[in-house]
Amino acid sequence: MGILLRNVLAVTGESTTTVDLRVDGETISTVSTERLSARPDETIINGEGKLAIPGFVNAHTHLPMSLFRGLAEEIPLNRWLEDHIWPRERNLKPEEVYWGALLGLAEMIRSGITLCADMYFQTDEIGRAVEEAGLRAILSCGIIAERLDAHGKAELDKAAEAIARWEGAAGGRITTAVSPHAIYTCGEEIWHAAIELAADHKIPLHTHLCETQGEADWSQKNLGMSPIAFLSQIGVFSVPVLAAHCVHVGNEDIRLLAEGTATVVHCPKSNSKLGSGISPIVALRDAGVNVALGTDGAATNNSLDMFEEMRMAALLAKGCSCDPTVLPARSVVKMATENGANGLGIGTGRLAAGEPADIVLVDLDSIRTLPAYEPFSALVYAAHAQDVTDVIVAGRFLLRQGELLAIDEERVRHEVKKLVNRQAN
Amino acid sequence: MGILLRNVLAVTGESTTTVDLRVDGETISTVSTERLSARPDETIINGEGKLAIPGFVNAHTHLPMSLFRGLAEEIPLNRWLEDHIWPRERNLKPEEVYWGALLGLAEMIRSGITLCADMYFQTDEIGRAVEEAGLRAILSCGIIAERLDAHGKAELDKAAEAIARWEGAAGGRITTAVSPHAIYTCGEEIWHAAIELAADHKIPLHTHLCETQGEADWSQKNLGMSPIAFLSQIGVFSVPVLAAHCVHVGNEDIRLLAEGTATVVHCPKSNSKLGSGISPIVALRDAGVNVALGTDGAATNNSLDMFEEMRMAALLAKGCSCDPTVLPARSVVKMATENGANGLGIGTGRLAAGEPADIVLVDLDSIRTLPAYEPFSALVYAAHAQDVTDVIVAGRFLLRQGELLAIDEERVRHEVKKLVNRQAN
Repeated sequence: MGILLRNVLAVTGESTTTVDLRVDGETISTVSTERLSARPDETIINGEGKLAIPGFVNAHTHLPMSLFRGLAEEIPLNRWLEDHIWPRERNLKPEEVYWGALLGLAEMIRSGITLCADMYFQTDEIGRAVEEAGLRAILSCGIIAERLDAHGKAELDKAAEAIARWEGAAGGRITTAVSPHAIYTCGEEIWHAAIELAADHKIPLHTHLCETQGEADWSQKNLGMSPIAFLSQIGVFSVPVLAAHCVHVGNEDIRLLAEGTATVVHCPKSNSKLGSGISPIVALRDAGVNVALGTDGAATNNSLDMFEEMRMAALLAKGCSCDPTVLPARSVVKMATENGANGLGIGTGRLAAGEPADIVLVDLDSIRTLPAYEPFSALVYAAHAQDVTDVIVAGRFLLRQGELLAIDEERVRHEVKKLVNRQAN
Repeated sequence: MGILLRNVLAVTGESTTTVDLRVDGETISTVSTERLSARPDETIINGEGKLAIPGFVNAHTHLPMSLFRGLAEEIPLNRWLEDHIWPRERNLKPEEVYWGALLGLAEMIRSGITLCADMYFQTDEIGRAVEEAGLRAILSCGIIAERLDAHGKAELDKAAEAIARWEGAAGGRITTAVSPHAIYTCGEEIWHAAIELAADHKIPLHTHLCETQGEADWSQKNLGMSPIAFLSQIGVFSVPVLAAHCVHVGNEDIRLLAEGTATVVHCPKSNSKLGSGISPIVALRDAGVNVALGTDGAATNNSLDMFEEMRMAALLAKGCSCDPTVLPARSVVKMATENGANGLGIGTGRLAAGEPADIVLVDLDSIRTLPAYEPFSALVYAAHAQDVTDVIVAGRFLLRQGELLAIDEERVRHEVKKLVNRQAN
């Protein structure tokens, strides 16, 4: 049992090449410009008119928050969290977390995402949803605590339980991270304990960093330095870190990030919609920082769609700098694939022999994309999630010719509507 | 023969209401919160789970340029025009203009656009395509000339011929405008002749204005004032004007625009991608300027999709101002409908009795949009062109349950690929 992708235009390094691509088990075994002869037990896919890309990596999200999409819109982050989201989250039932996560996963698969880094709570419900949905995820149970008191210990215990339960689960598709929520919600003792937990398990930290001006001001006032200077000083950048946002960063912050182990996860749609600002990703990249892309949760985005995120990243960078040459399409595709995979430490995000068989086919032959003179440009500037026809993760089809196989989409819609109606009444 | 939309959530003024909506001939005859009894010869559409919106108005585009989508990417506007686009356009064959326009029209209908303002040349080919496609358009044959010499007169004659041939054509669906290309490509004599032509026919002017810093600099150097001050001085704002872009405008420019007759057509994706900059639309709106939305051509966008344009407008305004409350979703929907209709002088862009029956149905019940707590938010931040199920223009279905009726999509794809391959060889 394997898959033979025939005659498909594939993203190979800096350019695209027409190849035959073979999947054996969970791995890409051959990528060849020569025609491969089919084996009797192989599923043969005619790749003509399609572009094969490595699956997108959504490097920062909160899956169950799809349940809050469109709730309490167009207000600042602090009011949104304190007045609307946190009160709801305190009463969130396990079934809401589960169906909210499946809603998010269905949307992600349809937009070609094969790996995501999630931060939430009730991790068992999310793990169950990811296990069924069939893609890869790095899960973490977020920590919010000032001190290592009874509450702080309970938060760390929950984080540790999630690691014990989910690290390596679903045949290795699920791994874990440690997620102190942010510098303004976690005290120094908590950060030290989080670093230790991550180092013990050789897993990354995942946090929100320099998202708003308010956070930067809070940090100067309470810590006497920038959030990044503080984290650097206490040794956070000694372990791999997924640092979501990094909007309000100065030159010295950029230098510290470039020296350290952090991957910056750029979330341009969420940052824009919340009025948080715009991350200086061109400067970050120029300094040598690994910059990946994330959707954040659907409650602030309001999509989990990497085509939209790539497009927004490219357009914002060009529009704000008044320079059409910065951040070309090929670089944006890299951010959405290779840089994400590197940041999460899972594969290289490339279509190459020996890599995980996480492959997405995109139809560039529609009225939205024709004539696709340049495939990277078509992918970033013209293609939509609806142009994704097939999604393969670990050698298994999750989407086949536009049909979602691993998730019962009708059931998800039905259950989500039932939960939302119940909440409203 | 008519259409009865039953039980549909409809955009009515500032909010949404569940109504029955009747179309008689080319006009909306009734919008009622009471149940309407069906007539024997009516097509009855069950509107449950759908949102009915007035058709989107794409207030600035170049339809045939869909043929250049993805060609010569990520370079500045002047090099893009001078080195790549203008040389190609000089040799463009009528069949290329026709199939390029149909490619653009198919994409536009699928994204819910029912009216567009186009500026190009070989207007007969575009008119033929619009006539077949079934939507509404304001067509114009662009004028590029320094003086009213033989070349200048020939340009104005072509513009006048397009008006004579297409004003009121296709049962009134097609009207016309006069399009001097820009201040740096048309001299003062040409502007005066264009104003006269527009005033004679009681049609609007349509132009590019303050698109790049280069244009602003050129104007200061050659005219001794800003482009808007110049046009104001020579009386351009005495007739209705569609002024595309208005990126580089100062406070005095904004005052002049607010005093005059111009509708600013904001094209955020094209302006960003070309590195032209970002139009200060919040300030323009605050000053009382009518701001509509346009896609520009697919060669610089690279889509003709008003969902994307609305989203980009909202996100850019919030992100650049660090204020999530500016330009709320309802205002963006107005820009894409009412403000466009007002600017083009065709209807009011509202779903109301007596208005043209240009109606779009959007499915807000998909995994991309659920739960749609707030319909305007769902429309602007989460919906995609693929969520458009039905498009009615002048009482006739152009899209029905996702199927394009007026355009043979397969044929368009086939012909476009043939033309592009021929060009490449």
